[in-house]
Amino acid sequence: MRALVYDGQLRVEHEAPEPERQGDQALLKIRRAGICNTDLELIAGMYGFSGILGHEFVAEVIEGPEQLAGRRVVGEINVACTQCDFCQKGIPSQCRNRTTVGIIRHPGAFADCLALATRNLHVVPDEVSDDEAVFVEPLAAALQITEAVHISPRDRVVVLGVGKLGMLAAQVLKLTGANVVAVIRREKQAQLLKQWRIPAVELNELEPQRAQVVVDCTGQAEGFEAALSLVEARGTVVLKSTYYGLPQANLTQVAVREVRVVGSRCGPFDAALRLLKAKLVDVKSLIEARYNLNDGLAAMEYAAEKGVLKVLLEF
Amino acid sequence: MRALVYDGQLRVEHEAPEPERQGDQALLKIRRAGICNTDLELIAGMYGFSGILGHEFVAEVIEGPEQLAGRRVVGEINVACTQCDFCQKGIPSQCRNRTTVGIIRHPGAFADCLALATRNLHVVPDEVSDDEAVFVEPLAAALQITEAVHISPRDRVVVLGVGKLGMLAAQVLKLTGANVVAVIRREKQAQLLKQWRIPAVELNELEPQRAQVVVDCTGQAEGFEAALSLVEARGTVVLKSTYYGLPQANLTQVAVREVRVVGSRCGPFDAALRLLKAKLVDVKSLIEARYNLNDGLAAMEYAAEKGVLKVLLEF
Repeated sequence: MRALVYDGQLRVEHEAPEPERQGDQALLKIRRAGICNTDLELIAGMYGFSGILGHEFVAEVIEGPEQLAGRRVVGEINVACTQCDFCQKGIPSQCRNRTTVGIIRHPGAFADCLALATRNLHVVPDEVSDDEAVFVEPLAAALQITEAVHISPRDRVVVLGVGKLGMLAAQVLKLTGANVVAVIRREKQAQLLKQWRIPAVELNELEPQRAQVVVDCTGQAEGFEAALSLVEARGTVVLKSTYYGLPQANLTQVAVREVRVVGSRCGPFDAALRLLKAKLVDVKSLIEARYNLNDGLAAMEYAAEKGVLKVLLEF
Repeated sequence: MRALVYDGQLRVEHEAPEPERQGDQALLKIRRAGICNTDLELIAGMYGFSGILGHEFVAEVIEGPEQLAGRRVVGEINVACTQCDFCQKGIPSQCRNRTTVGIIRHPGAFADCLALATRNLHVVPDEVSDDEAVFVEPLAAALQITEAVHISPRDRVVVLGVGKLGMLAAQVLKLTGANVVAVIRREKQAQLLKQWRIPAVELNELEPQRAQVVVDCTGQAEGFEAALSLVEARGTVVLKSTYYGLPQANLTQVAVREVRVVGSRCGPFDAALRLLKAKLVDVKSLIEARYNLNDGLAAMEYAAEKGVLKVLLEF
């Protein structure tokens, strides 16, 4: 089969071995996949990853339990041990022994086929197209904001870094009824946000220390600094991205103004599917380009350009 | 009157002007005061402070409303405007226009007399001695940990930096019934902790990622790093100190392991007085030296030595 592989070098393999279904796994034929910033970080060598990339996908079950055979599915990316304290507490996404599809010791979805634990799969309703379903993983991650932090409809909320993930975060937050604004640096962002009725502002237009919640999707030390400057005392800064290197952080401000800094990672797939089915989130406007897997290198290169939103891989 | 003043240089003034009572203020005669790490930071020039230092004190009301006259009192240090959104929400400690006794644009308590807003005063019960009452402010700050974060009696809790404040934090946390351990670097700390039945360990004796709550009282980047290494996924790191400079912080770990970092500052005086009255916290063992205000410079010098716990000023 074909696979987009990184092992210190990025390449499309054309005769990669097909995965064999093991234990409770299903064998999936990938229909569509999405490129995430994490993929770009992996090929920058950030997490020592080696193997088939990719963790955003929609697929068809070609081998598996009867009730799943032939169905379209999306798959949660953390494969949990089911035994550790986090699994027992019902938090498999933080399993102490987990592997993660395309990220930690598990083959990814930028390949014709993927074998994945059946318990990780969610059937995609007919009303949700492939182009929408491929966004379930990042949309679930955006929903992990409201899973981790109570957003009141009275809150002033600022989203920093409205790229691939920030655009989803802004839409999810808007659904709470809160007063959500997004800080932009590009005209393209402004147009999409306008379409969704989310006010777009520049950083210097916002009064300091007035937001109850600031969501930092920038992954930059400067983003965290801006978040701290915007959040009011006792407010919450949600960290929605990994950061480059070890950023300097004004922990004194966190202590003195009693800010809460809350990390947030993988989220609920079922809720993401419900929002897509109800057409409450617009993901299709985020699609910026489509490449065949054969052109995976060009796809990754384009996805890495500044300001580019979602790049899809087709099979 | 006498006053320990810092204006770029530290000195004891012997003929400082007595404060005049204004508006709803009471005039207090200071009976005893305590030196805090914040005082040491102020004279290192960290916050641009100029004036009379000191914010931990017990005093006698020499001029004020009838029901307070002649009473022993302690005083909350944030003088709030009563008008801003934080005051209206009942959070005067985060008032947007506050002054802070001995820290922000308000004369401090290292002086014979202090004029302070009457609403900031709490009468000290007879059962609480001056030596105990002088600890109400830092004990209240320790209680702000349990105000900000729900500590379950099932939690594993680690306290890092068991100095003046950390020793109070460890005792307050112990009262929750949680499994509290303190990380120590000095034998003196170990002896006090043993007396309070709080296990003392060295950092390398603790298994990583096993604590539900880690309280960082170190004020050091290394302390925050250790806190992150000890806290489990979805756990909480409480920041109980200001930090020197702009520490580097592994925000990626915070995001990926979904940690909560919670700042915590001034706390409830009434609760601190209740614990002291009930003899549930031992503060007297923390007193390491007493100096007359006349010897304020020597007192500050001794308080700045590594490992020294509470230094009191007498009048």
